[in-house]
Amino acid sequence: MTEAPSHPLAAPAAAWFRTLRDRLCTAFEAIESEAGSDARFAFTDWERPGGGGGTMGLMRGQVLEKAGVNISTVYGEFSPEFRKQIPGAEEDPRFLATGVSLVVHPRSPRCPTAHMNTRFIVTSRAWFGGGGDITPMDKQAQWSLEDAAYFHAAFRDACDRHDPEYYARFSQWCAEYFFLPHRGEERGLGGIFYDWLGDRTPGHGPEADFAFTKDVGLAFLDAYPAIIRRRMAEPFDEAERAIQRHRRGRYVEFNLLHDRGTLFGLRTGGNVEAILMSLPPDAGW
Amino acid sequence: MTEAPSHPLAAPAAAWFRTLRDRLCTAFEAIESEAGSDARFAFTDWERPGGGGGTMGLMRGQVLEKAGVNISTVYGEFSPEFRKQIPGAEEDPRFLATGVSLVVHPRSPRCPTAHMNTRFIVTSRAWFGGGGDITPMDKQAQWSLEDAAYFHAAFRDACDRHDPEYYARFSQWCAEYFFLPHRGEERGLGGIFYDWLGDRTPGHGPEADFAFTKDVGLAFLDAYPAIIRRRMAEPFDEAERAIQRHRRGRYVEFNLLHDRGTLFGLRTGGNVEAILMSLPPDAGW
Repeated sequence: MTEAPSHPLAAPAAAWFRTLRDRLCTAFEAIESEAGSDARFAFTDWERPGGGGGTMGLMRGQVLEKAGVNISTVYGEFSPEFRKQIPGAEEDPRFLATGVSLVVHPRSPRCPTAHMNTRFIVTSRAWFGGGGDITPMDKQAQWSLEDAAYFHAAFRDACDRHDPEYYARFSQWCAEYFFLPHRGEERGLGGIFYDWLGDRTPGHGPEADFAFTKDVGLAFLDAYPAIIRRRMAEPFDEAERAIQRHRRGRYVEFNLLHDRGTLFGLRTGGNVEAILMSLPPDAGW
Repeated sequence: MTEAPSHPLAAPAAAWFRTLRDRLCTAFEAIESEAGSDARFAFTDWERPGGGGGTMGLMRGQVLEKAGVNISTVYGEFSPEFRKQIPGAEEDPRFLATGVSLVVHPRSPRCPTAHMNTRFIVTSRAWFGGGGDITPMDKQAQWSLEDAAYFHAAFRDACDRHDPEYYARFSQWCAEYFFLPHRGEERGLGGIFYDWLGDRTPGHGPEADFAFTKDVGLAFLDAYPAIIRRRMAEPFDEAERAIQRHRRGRYVEFNLLHDRGTLFGLRTGGNVEAILMSLPPDAGW
């Protein structure tokens, strides 16, 4: 059995991701309750054969048609193929990865889909990564632009408290990352994305990078449920549902063709159900 | 402008693929007519910036909820990345590829989804490839096993007329190719798959390999519409439709994560709409 590489922040980070998971699930369940639904998250633990494991949380709600919130702490050794791609893995193949990730597909096409993930990776080096982005179903609609502005403002505030350059850099990174080259379009209306913070991406030291990563999660926790509450009672028509199915198809295309996290998880023997929980409840082509 | 590499079978193969396309579309439209639907294929020509082009054919029918039949003849130069992977391309980067491909997603969960593709590739070498496979929605059901047996028998006949070893080899190849490693399952109930026939895969000379490829197309043309006619009037319930949406999700997973043709097409600047026409009209996760 491979021992996990150690880092003083590994346990506190894992504990924080669990706390954030609990608060996110509570926030989403509260929205269901307000809509008169008694939908609640169901949690399933899984173990990773190579070391570690996680907990999938899934709710199929009235407002939040499909909400997946996962936490995991996995460790082991990278295969030779991956060692070249991961900072610090060429020296020593051992790794530990702990994180929280969520994707929410609301039922109403007036409510944007959202994704959030924050993580801490330890090899012979260590770094934080993460971010959040929203995908409104009609990117040109006035309400979508308002929601995107609100979502970005929350992340901008969180960024500005830590580094005046973070928001510009990480929102640009998000736009570049969540891009479908074969369609020539962005997945949604962005947010922020950052990786290797404290390693390839200059940070402010491990404690400060952890504090920033916490604030990213809290910014999402504040902003996204607020957007859902603002939109959940708006009426919509069948034409908008059809656009939603089409846009959800593009979401599937991104996740299966391009998303580094999805492909990384599938290739390293991660839990398939947890990894593909990001896929929408329906989609059409 | 790159000139296409020449081969005496290039034009006859392209002409045959167009003829087969016409016959397939006629057969599918006849099924619609029998069901009292006036659904017909709509054809859209497209050009490939690097050379050549094709025609997409799409019908959204009553029986055949989504049927895509494409032909294309494209040529140009492989990028350095691809030259190493393609037989005969290291010596000379020019290529010509001509083929026909189809995917049919019937509305009834009692009718299997089917895929067929045959192609002729010319680099400094030349070879045929192709095959067909079916994906019943309920792989354990008695009717699915009967349909799969009928489908396989048609291909076995076509194979046996050309080489007694073809069917065993090519049906095995199909089972290995249409496999979802992350799910640990085959996509459907198989068929045949072959590639590099006359190059890495021993054939019987270009003319014989072309004749075999024609027979593969004709076997599909005979077998698949017959299966649809046998099943199209059977009643089904909502539970079967739910299984169908689930299985269609797996179809999407295969095509976007694993299908060599899809990924090849997207990476070589193929027509995105034509390539992704294989995706189902709906899917769910």
